[in-house]
Amino acid sequence: MTAKSQQGWTGDPAELLRVGEGFRLADVDPDATPGYGGKKSDGRADLAAGADEVGDLQERLFATSREDAATPSVLLVLQAMDTAGKGGIVRHVVGAADPQGVHLVAFKKPTDAELAHDFLWRIERELPPAGFIGVFDRSHYEDVLIGRVRELARPAEIERRYGAIVDFEKRLTDAGTRVVKVMLHISPQEQKARLTERLERPDKHWKYHPGDVDERLLWPQYMDAYQTAFERTSTQDAPWFVVPANAKWYARLAVQALLLDALEDIDPQWPVATFDVAQEKERLAAS
Amino acid sequence: MTAKSQQGWTGDPAELLRVGEGFRLADVDPDATPGYGGKKSDGRADLAAGADEVGDLQERLFATSREDAATPSVLLVLQAMDTAGKGGIVRHVVGAADPQGVHLVAFKKPTDAELAHDFLWRIERELPPAGFIGVFDRSHYEDVLIGRVRELARPAEIERRYGAIVDFEKRLTDAGTRVVKVMLHISPQEQKARLTERLERPDKHWKYHPGDVDERLLWPQYMDAYQTAFERTSTQDAPWFVVPANAKWYARLAVQALLLDALEDIDPQWPVATFDVAQEKERLAAS
Repeated sequence: MTAKSQQGWTGDPAELLRVGEGFRLADVDPDATPGYGGKKSDGRADLAAGADEVGDLQERLFATSREDAATPSVLLVLQAMDTAGKGGIVRHVVGAADPQGVHLVAFKKPTDAELAHDFLWRIERELPPAGFIGVFDRSHYEDVLIGRVRELARPAEIERRYGAIVDFEKRLTDAGTRVVKVMLHISPQEQKARLTERLERPDKHWKYHPGDVDERLLWPQYMDAYQTAFERTSTQDAPWFVVPANAKWYARLAVQALLLDALEDIDPQWPVATFDVAQEKERLAAS
Repeated sequence: MTAKSQQGWTGDPAELLRVGEGFRLADVDPDATPGYGGKKSDGRADLAAGADEVGDLQERLFATSREDAATPSVLLVLQAMDTAGKGGIVRHVVGAADPQGVHLVAFKKPTDAELAHDFLWRIERELPPAGFIGVFDRSHYEDVLIGRVRELARPAEIERRYGAIVDFEKRLTDAGTRVVKVMLHISPQEQKARLTERLERPDKHWKYHPGDVDERLLWPQYMDAYQTAFERTSTQDAPWFVVPANAKWYARLAVQALLLDALEDIDPQWPVATFDVAQEKERLAAS
């Protein structure tokens, strides 16, 4: 299912990008544009059309939550290797929604206080309220990605976390939250090009960290950790989607389509007035 | 000082809108467009040009803060009567900045937990981190506005708060935060028109609350409370600006100009690399 006003989709990204039985990350081509028949220029028009739909649906969702505390929320989880374009997704996809209904959190290296709690403690505190779109720029998955690759916890603790994540997310989805988990997938060659650009432009130096290259050298280990995370935590209700992201324009369109799917699944309606409209018109006119 | 790429300004909104000695709210015409010589259509082009500057300056500010925890932040405080357009300011002015560097808080009626603390307790917790643009949609000023009009605290407590606010904001500005306090000023007639529209459109009913009319009936008392707040809390370093807001396009342009002023006053520069660029290029090339 994709936005009706978008022309370029020839297949359903929610089906084509979903991590299902037998999924192998190694088989995904980061250059591909699954399900999209249009060109980059079509993509721009479709992204703009989709942005209007995101804005409209999110306003309805937010409106509903003002009257009904049981309104669902959406939680978009973004994971990726450095430079894959998480920031661009936040600006160009989520940016279409009214900021007052968006809860964006960029999870960094845990603080000492956070490390003194279970890894899901800081996540729980940042879950989106009813009617909000929550966006996690990195997430609890760091604890089974860098956590695994860098051996930041014992193997048995890492193992425990997969199950804990599944249970945690099941609680969220059972309570109505739409959990959309996205990995933006770039190739190591594309990352090299993007890091090179950061080094060549003084206005991009701040985005570069020498540690990025250290992580880059562990690319195969990270891909293994992602593969394992997908196998252990991609569920029916909280599936993973792997989005080829060498073409930024495609990645944005695809994540927008996944977000629209979640919003359309909620299908929020304008809430019915809880007051007497005619009577209020009279009061207002007399004021 | 206004954005160089903007053509329509003929005067400096920071001077024209500032609450100074002898200011009287009753003398401000909500229909006016002080300092702006262009028409609404010029305003649209100028807002777009200014949006690019907001985005650029905010990225520099955010970049600076990644290297320097002492980077200033900006705090934009928005206060207004209902329907004056705070939400539009958030979308169309603040929306030009990257969401990852914006901390937006909509303060509601205080919870029991908040009421168990001093009125500035919940404010302190939501101050923008270094390098962020913080936006308060309502603020600690509610505690001397509705707090005064509705007598939610004793007179002596209300009196105490003015001084507490001045001291609190002085601490912020002494530490480098640019505090920009804006009242969007509409006329009661304009509010009536906007509330009427909300009642006439089912997709706007959720924005209407019968209590809005109750507050509306206290308009003169609210204007008195604003006047007093201005007299007691408009300081050299944390001045108030009263922005005529019957014309939404003007209010957005004016607040954008005030925000740009604050960012230009910080004048953030791209941080110098803390690593050896040539050496990193070699490491990256070899990776």
